[in-house]
Amino acid sequence: MMSADEMLQRAIAGERRWLARAITLIEHREPKIGRALVGASVRRRSTPGSPHIIGLTGPPGAGKSTFVDRIVATARADGKRVAVAAVDPSSPFTGGAILGDRIRMERHTADDGVYIRSLSSRGHLGGLSGATTEVCDLFDAAGFDLILVETVGVGQSELGVMEVADTVVVILTPESGDAVQAMKAGLLEIADVFVVNKADRDGADRLVRELSRTVKLGEDPWSAPVLSASAKENRGIDEVVSEAARHLAWCTSEGLASWTSRRGDARIRRFLDLVTSSSRRAAAAAMTDDLRGRIRSGETDPHKALEELK
Amino acid sequence: MMSADEMLQRAIAGERRWLARAITLIEHREPKIGRALVGASVRRRSTPGSPHIIGLTGPPGAGKSTFVDRIVATARADGKRVAVAAVDPSSPFTGGAILGDRIRMERHTADDGVYIRSLSSRGHLGGLSGATTEVCDLFDAAGFDLILVETVGVGQSELGVMEVADTVVVILTPESGDAVQAMKAGLLEIADVFVVNKADRDGADRLVRELSRTVKLGEDPWSAPVLSASAKENRGIDEVVSEAARHLAWCTSEGLASWTSRRGDARIRRFLDLVTSSSRRAAAAAMTDDLRGRIRSGETDPHKALEELK
Repeated sequence: MMSADEMLQRAIAGERRWLARAITLIEHREPKIGRALVGASVRRRSTPGSPHIIGLTGPPGAGKSTFVDRIVATARADGKRVAVAAVDPSSPFTGGAILGDRIRMERHTADDGVYIRSLSSRGHLGGLSGATTEVCDLFDAAGFDLILVETVGVGQSELGVMEVADTVVVILTPESGDAVQAMKAGLLEIADVFVVNKADRDGADRLVRELSRTVKLGEDPWSAPVLSASAKENRGIDEVVSEAARHLAWCTSEGLASWTSRRGDARIRRFLDLVTSSSRRAAAAAMTDDLRGRIRSGETDPHKALEELK
Repeated sequence: MMSADEMLQRAIAGERRWLARAITLIEHREPKIGRALVGASVRRRSTPGSPHIIGLTGPPGAGKSTFVDRIVATARADGKRVAVAAVDPSSPFTGGAILGDRIRMERHTADDGVYIRSLSSRGHLGGLSGATTEVCDLFDAAGFDLILVETVGVGQSELGVMEVADTVVVILTPESGDAVQAMKAGLLEIADVFVVNKADRDGADRLVRELSRTVKLGEDPWSAPVLSASAKENRGIDEVVSEAARHLAWCTSEGLASWTSRRGDARIRRFLDLVTSSSRRAAAAAMTDDLRGRIRSGETDPHKALEELK
């Protein structure tokens, strides 16, 4: 069998088959691929923007995948190589995926300068952001110029995925209504660029005004722009791309301290995620059939079982 | 300072102030309160339905809170004591909450037979379902007859919360559209009762038909009923309550093996969550300032740091 290092070298050299395999190992939190990645040349560790990692998040149905599709097309027209990691809001039970998105993306699959991969959110248990970070490291080492990470903006582990991004684009729609209310708090905090998609619908202007007001109230050193767009009609995509570029320029200049601090926080969380997944794996392996049976039946409480295992 | 055991006794005796404190400790994953709970008399460990734990989940804006409100009112009319744990889709950053829901619930707060508590989904890192389980154990020990757990049905940790429930009610709306497509896979697997809320809107009948067809295709020993409702107009609530009761009756008879197996799986996952949170806590405590600084700056990779800590 091929070693993790060898597989990684082939993946980095651009062999798609091995790129796919390496990502699968990362998804399964195989420590050997993670360790192999440590040795790889990953540019983004020290500098913002090479490659530029853009995160796209927002409620289900906001049109994130359409944006990803359009941004990929724009970047390809500029000759950039683009990788996409789409973190599915799919089942933790069945690992199902969204057929529609896959079909929309298909026009890019024949293009050698584009690599698109769905990551299941299944079974990561707090390690979802760690897995995504490692996948981005792999894309980085493989020389992609732009990396897009798409995830549904609901739920803690899903939002945590955005930690890996230099620039976070939050996409909302007027009709999100109550849903937006519910999620605003979390999304507001992480947004570097706001987009109100489906801007021709009722309530779009009001949402733009509300967001602009809220951004002004914040004390963030970067003031997130609020854009209107209609991704389906291809309106507003250029503005999103140029505002993301402006944010990146800020990260490399007066925003560098802010970028560095955000990156440092993410590294600490990633370390704690690694501790978590490694101890969970060790505990699952150390559990005897007897102990497993006693926990299942309720005879031994989980807290007592933890003491037993120590 | 009061010991965890003493606090727990007061909480169980119905002193609301200590109930609130104990839940806060559970939310912060304090091991001492968890261990104290092991000694408490918790009925649901061995039998389905005493108390009956009903989980309510679905996409943001589906009307979950309105259902909770109505089910509480119905149960109170029957003289049942009811506790509600609402797991917020709020920010992992700010801990914000949904004002509207809180206001809707306020009419119950003067009622001594109802206890409502919002649990933040912040900072649990895979332990969200564990915390919710312990809160339900506490409600159980305190003698509540019915426990409602409400959570937004997007995101792995949020769906995991439903593990604690005897009966899972999945609430959808016709206009969820694409969003429903996205989440169907996960929600379908866990639903014991489906409700199509806002049933007067376009597409409601089609959604009911689609769901019914999908349920029939499944091989689940329990065939989930698909109900129509309009929670705001108080239509369909009684049906949800009676179908939940019918599901519970099934769990205590021909469905007992299925219930027992589900409960066993949940106990194993809860044990692994405990391992996770305890090791994360230990690692955070064991991290020296030097190591923290090296991780933050990127000098020491998280994988190397993990080896260093071992």
